[in-house]
Amino acid sequence: MSMFSGLSAFPLTPLRDDALDEGAFVGLVGRLRDAGVDSITALGSTGSYPYLDRAERARVARLAVEHAAGTPVFVGVGDLRTSRVLHRIDDAEAAGASGLLLAAMSYQRLTDDDVFELFRTATEHTELPVILYDNPGTTHFSFSIELIARVAALPGVAAVKIPSVPADPAAAQERVDAVRGSIPAGVTIGVSGDASAANGLNAGCDAWNSVIAGTLPAPALEITRAAQEGRPADAVAASERLAPLWNLFTEFGGSIRVVAAIAEMLGLVGERSLPLPLQGLTAPQRARVAEVVRGLGLTA
Amino acid sequence: MSMFSGLSAFPLTPLRDDALDEGAFVGLVGRLRDAGVDSITALGSTGSYPYLDRAERARVARLAVEHAAGTPVFVGVGDLRTSRVLHRIDDAEAAGASGLLLAAMSYQRLTDDDVFELFRTATEHTELPVILYDNPGTTHFSFSIELIARVAALPGVAAVKIPSVPADPAAAQERVDAVRGSIPAGVTIGVSGDASAANGLNAGCDAWNSVIAGTLPAPALEITRAAQEGRPADAVAASERLAPLWNLFTEFGGSIRVVAAIAEMLGLVGERSLPLPLQGLTAPQRARVAEVVRGLGLTA
Repeated sequence: MSMFSGLSAFPLTPLRDDALDEGAFVGLVGRLRDAGVDSITALGSTGSYPYLDRAERARVARLAVEHAAGTPVFVGVGDLRTSRVLHRIDDAEAAGASGLLLAAMSYQRLTDDDVFELFRTATEHTELPVILYDNPGTTHFSFSIELIARVAALPGVAAVKIPSVPADPAAAQERVDAVRGSIPAGVTIGVSGDASAANGLNAGCDAWNSVIAGTLPAPALEITRAAQEGRPADAVAASERLAPLWNLFTEFGGSIRVVAAIAEMLGLVGERSLPLPLQGLTAPQRARVAEVVRGLGLTA
Repeated sequence: MSMFSGLSAFPLTPLRDDALDEGAFVGLVGRLRDAGVDSITALGSTGSYPYLDRAERARVARLAVEHAAGTPVFVGVGDLRTSRVLHRIDDAEAAGASGLLLAAMSYQRLTDDDVFELFRTATEHTELPVILYDNPGTTHFSFSIELIARVAALPGVAAVKIPSVPADPAAAQERVDAVRGSIPAGVTIGVSGDASAANGLNAGCDAWNSVIAGTLPAPALEITRAAQEGRPADAVAASERLAPLWNLFTEFGGSIRVVAAIAEMLGLVGERSLPLPLQGLTAPQRARVAEVVRGLGLTA
């Protein structure tokens, strides 16, 4: 099985007084390693990569590899500027990363050719495998199937991370099949959008790039293992039990504030662990999160 | 008349081989000063602020003030992280900036409270006047009238830069009046979206925050002075003569690639002056730009 298969957990990168909270981050990595996730992706969107400086990102990469104790660590190397992406790659390599996650971060709108050349430049710069990270909700760039095909054909691209698949299983299957049909054999597909992960895995995605697993690995592993072991209905049922959580992701404008609130509530990270200007959830929103987490028995 | 009134020209920050092209930048600033623009805004979106590092931005701010020879210089201090915004403010102050332009840059979606607190923190950190920079096309954050009102009421906020106003003069008037009615007396309003600037000025905006003026100040001054001198029809006519240019902004997915191509074509900056991954326009697109610029007699 590919190193890129299974459950990849995306931990937060907690801050404390605007500095990296190393102890809390190491604790999160250890929690994921002990839970038995298949890989850890540091510095994904949930890991606040665009908010951190070069030294902070290099340090996070080193800590993740050091404390993952053999669990493969992938490191997010996205940046607005190509030359900075290459610096991030150098630092991730030096840290001992097993692979690189590259998003098409944008400020000015990017063309398909801009993004293709970014990936070409990045993959030519490194021998590490690269994961194409399609995350239009934050990057404001959407990969077409045609562009996925062009990028995935680059030597060095090992996996493609796609956004949420449709809730309807047939439509999910169609979407995953379309991606599969456009990429070389051996390139794996990961699904993100936690609420749609069971559907994505059941439709043949190789991996789940999971926000919730970065903080609560156990329920994410339950879904992943059910799908992997050919128990699709169990995967869907396990995901549906978490519906109150997925609903909070939608209602509160994205997942990062909700998982940060959970991690803060469980004492895994300190209060106000997100980089400002992200203030995190309000007190009434946090109360709602706590109620849902307790109701689902996820306080361990 | 307020320092924030009239024509504020937004120069490009040209790169050469991924390094600041200081000679070309100084040349652009001198061109704007000599043309008689009312102010120069360095490190706006057209000046690629999000792509540049702290040292590069500090250097650009210094060069702009040094070569503006008394023309007020405003400096863009936006960043994804609040602490970095404060660093950019320190550097702009040290450079001698007359004011600060602050956008609500986002990766994770921002709440209104996040943005309000960003502006509160920034304005408390500096004695320089701050311009609220609403640029949803690139920041992916839109200011509501309610949030403009909250932010503009902060001591230290001197001006509000709004996006394009509607093409219909009555609708433009309604929009500008709504903003005017929500902000304290003395806070000025600047319009951006070059194609709508004549309409915005005629509807009572105090300033035009202009992309095109950063490269071609003369035709932008013609529009601005006509509006200021109570010749609204002349302002509209001068803007309508530039319609082929405004159409290219739309057709080619934004203004920065078009003005970079113009500056490159006129020899004001070197080839490929934008920060990668922005490759700039293709050869056929550049030919179209050259045709329009020559047809409008803007080659001087």
